Amino acid sequence: MARKAGKQTRILENIPSISGFASVVSKKEGEGPIGSEFDIVSEDAYFGEKTWEKAESRIQKDAINKAMDKAGITPSELEIVFAGDLLNQCIGSAYAMRDLGIPFVGLYGACSTMAESLGLASLFVDCGIVSCAAAVTSSHFCSAERQFRFPLEYGGVRTPTSQWTVTGGGAAIVTNGESPPFVKRVCIGKINDLGITDINNMGAAMAPAAADTLSQYFEDTLTSADNYDMIFTGDLGYVGSELFKELLQRAGIDLGKKHMDCGKLIYDKSQKVEAGGSGCGCSASVLCSFILNRIKEGIWRNVLFMATGALMSPTSNQQGESIPGIAHLVHLSAEK
Amino acid sequence: MARKAGKQTRILENIPSISGFASVVSKKEGEGPIGSEFDIVSEDAYFGEKTWEKAESRIQKDAINKAMDKAGITPSELEIVFAGDLLNQCIGSAYAMRDLGIPFVGLYGACSTMAESLGLASLFVDCGIVSCAAAVTSSHFCSAERQFRFPLEYGGVRTPTSQWTVTGGGAAIVTNGESPPFVKRVCIGKINDLGITDINNMGAAMAPAAADTLSQYFEDTLTSADNYDMIFTGDLGYVGSELFKELLQRAGIDLGKKHMDCGKLIYDKSQKVEAGGSGCGCSASVLCSFILNRIKEGIWRNVLFMATGALMSPTSNQQGESIPGIAHLVHLSAEK
Repeated sequence: MARKAGKQTRILENIPSISGFASVVSKKEGEGPIGSEFDIVSEDAYFGEKTWEKAESRIQKDAINKAMDKAGITPSELEIVFAGDLLNQCIGSAYAMRDLGIPFVGLYGACSTMAESLGLASLFVDCGIVSCAAAVTSSHFCSAERQFRFPLEYGGVRTPTSQWTVTGGGAAIVTNGESPPFVKRVCIGKINDLGITDINNMGAAMAPAAADTLSQYFEDTLTSADNYDMIFTGDLGYVGSELFKELLQRAGIDLGKKHMDCGKLIYDKSQKVEAGGSGCGCSASVLCSFILNRIKEGIWRNVLFMATGALMSPTSNQQGESIPGIAHLVHLSAEK
Repeated sequence: MARKAGKQTRILENIPSISGFASVVSKKEGEGPIGSEFDIVSEDAYFGEKTWEKAESRIQKDAINKAMDKAGITPSELEIVFAGDLLNQCIGSAYAMRDLGIPFVGLYGACSTMAESLGLASLFVDCGIVSCAAAVTSSHFCSAERQFRFPLEYGGVRTPTSQWTVTGGGAAIVTNGESPPFVKRVCIGKINDLGITDINNMGAAMAPAAADTLSQYFEDTLTSADNYDMIFTGDLGYVGSELFKELLQRAGIDLGKKHMDCGKLIYDKSQKVEAGGSGCGCSASVLCSFILNRIKEGIWRNVLFMATGALMSPTSNQQGESIPGIAHLVHLSAEK
């Protein structure tokens, strides 16, 4: 049973557990600062498949299978899967989940999908709709560049504000288990749009949504940054993170040194990724390795995970539309 | 509180009400056999906007606003919106919901979205996660043709199995109200793929998923066609409907005269739509007019609504992939 707190937050009264989680990435992410944390690092950007899109489905398949292994469950115990990705018509997820034979809820939340899927999975388990749910997402640098910007073969020059789409994904299995990490609260975000139109500056387009969701969550729960060990955003990157903190400061909220962004964390600056990592797979792979590992080990007791999405398409951009952003938040904890 | 029934079905114990619903279509649908049932019929395919994509967002905006009017609620009472559409990155929904300022869960279920969104909204209200939720979706003939097949300007010849994407949409407001229609059960479907690769024969690609979900639902609930007044599929059309019934007959299930398909119902054969209507807006506009009107009036007491989606993209099709289908089911009733 989820109890309402304020306007947007829901307190999970049964406090579900993330019984298993797994991350899958490619070589570049494996060479980054947290490379040793990932479960699977593929040397081959095609992951043994013939196209980048099929490689992305493979990432999701490997992630969910590994997460089920780590949770000690078989596919027949899984009652529902929440999944989505960035590809047109979310084919990364549909083709990945095709063979599983499990009820499937397809999502589109752009790069907010890991928080959206984990939030829904946690609410479903908390309310007893299912006993075991999965949350999965992915992105792939090559399929995303081709679809959103230019085919790689064009050799387009990248702008300093552009971000590097992570080739990777993550999966989390949510159950009524008794071991940490636990999910304590979920805050589903609203769409925010401050008029950014530059598709090479996604961090700035998503920052207002992140600031809005976090300040609403603090208001709903009567908590502040003091109550958490770390506050993670998904993929605001270097540019968006600055704007995010500026917007919060204007609202009188100071995160001190507690804010970290998955897009800043996943690559080293020497890896030539301009403003940092992005894509659904960015926050998904960092959550399902670095973050959840530390909560499981008790290094961090309370963490906010907030993935952010830019809800535009190349078509809306060509039609002169600004970029709407969204951010969903999940409160993760080491204690029940 | 949702109670489990069998493998995939959930029985809603608080039995939420659809307090308001509305449908929006364009001229062609307005001229069809159920044209007089729709709330809003636009003579202008652009709905007063400058592009087809913006027209599609306008459809969703008009549908949700009209549904809120009919439910007698204001946007501030709405606690969450579940919405999706067929456009790349689901921009139809994102731009429609941008100004509402309500927590937003973006979905991608292709043409199954009306059942997916209504199912999730009903589960959320039933479990007390929210008191008031909306389910919304749309499609537009011109934006869909350009994106999935050929730009209209090419004048491509249509095949006899091809279906006509409905320009329209629907919205339903789910609450704890005491007036019919009510939502009694939800069955989230699995992905099915029998190897169809012809993107001009979507009905056939979706039929196996519809047959799978319906037979699973009957098994889960120990009911049969005898327990319902009507059983609606979303947009299998003429070709897919035949295959659907054939697959069910092989499983020993006979629907008699109780099966109707929204894609067959929305246009007259004289309207040159080949195998019938399709698109998220097809089942959405028929549900939020013809079907819910009859349940509200008590003409039908128990109806199954099952929207079906084809989870492919032009890219997956070009890469030789077959078309995975999915179908979600909602049991609607005139009695609590």
